[in-house]
Amino acid sequence: MKLHEEEIDRRLPGIPGWRRENDQIVRDFQFADFKTALAFVNRVADEAEAMDHHPDILLHGWNRVRLSVMTHSEGGLTAKDFQLAERINLL
Amino acid sequence: MKLHEEEIDRRLPGIPGWRRENDQIVRDFQFADFKTALAFVNRVADEAEAMDHHPDILLHGWNRVRLSVMTHSEGGLTAKDFQLAERINLL
Repeated sequence: MKLHEEEIDRRLPGIPGWRRENDQIVRDFQFADFKTALAFVNRVADEAEAMDHHPDILLHGWNRVRLSVMTHSEGGLTAKDFQLAERINLL
Repeated sequence: MKLHEEEIDRRLPGIPGWRRENDQIVRDFQFADFKTALAFVNRVADEAEAMDHHPDILLHGWNRVRLSVMTHSEGGLTAKDFQLAERINLL
């Protein structure tokens, strides 16, 4: 179920590092090198598979990763998106 | 060394599936599922590490991968970009 605007604003402080971009929540990460960035991508992917909820993952500039999360079937942000962001923040 | 326009046009047919987008060459891939898309990303990453030449890798829509290749230090396309694309086409 798509979250209301107030609900999104209330939840955002609970996932430090993430920002809202239109219908998504987005976080940028930077790593020491490509290998470490790739290892992170694989940990995120494991989490995504476990939740059956898949972020868009951009590995760019050899050591940066941008994650973008939304619930496509609902056309916006749901509780599941915030759960995935929380889990990623624990990686 | 940055390739001339004519050289780029000459080389593009040698890397089927790739198209030019501004200063990059780009190819979109689609897979059966997330796991297969991720496995492909890891094979591309191995190739990139072996060549020490890193494409931007976007894993999106749970089963799609977009690769964008350029030589940032040269501000455009070089022979190395086409070599990487060729190797990726053999994966």
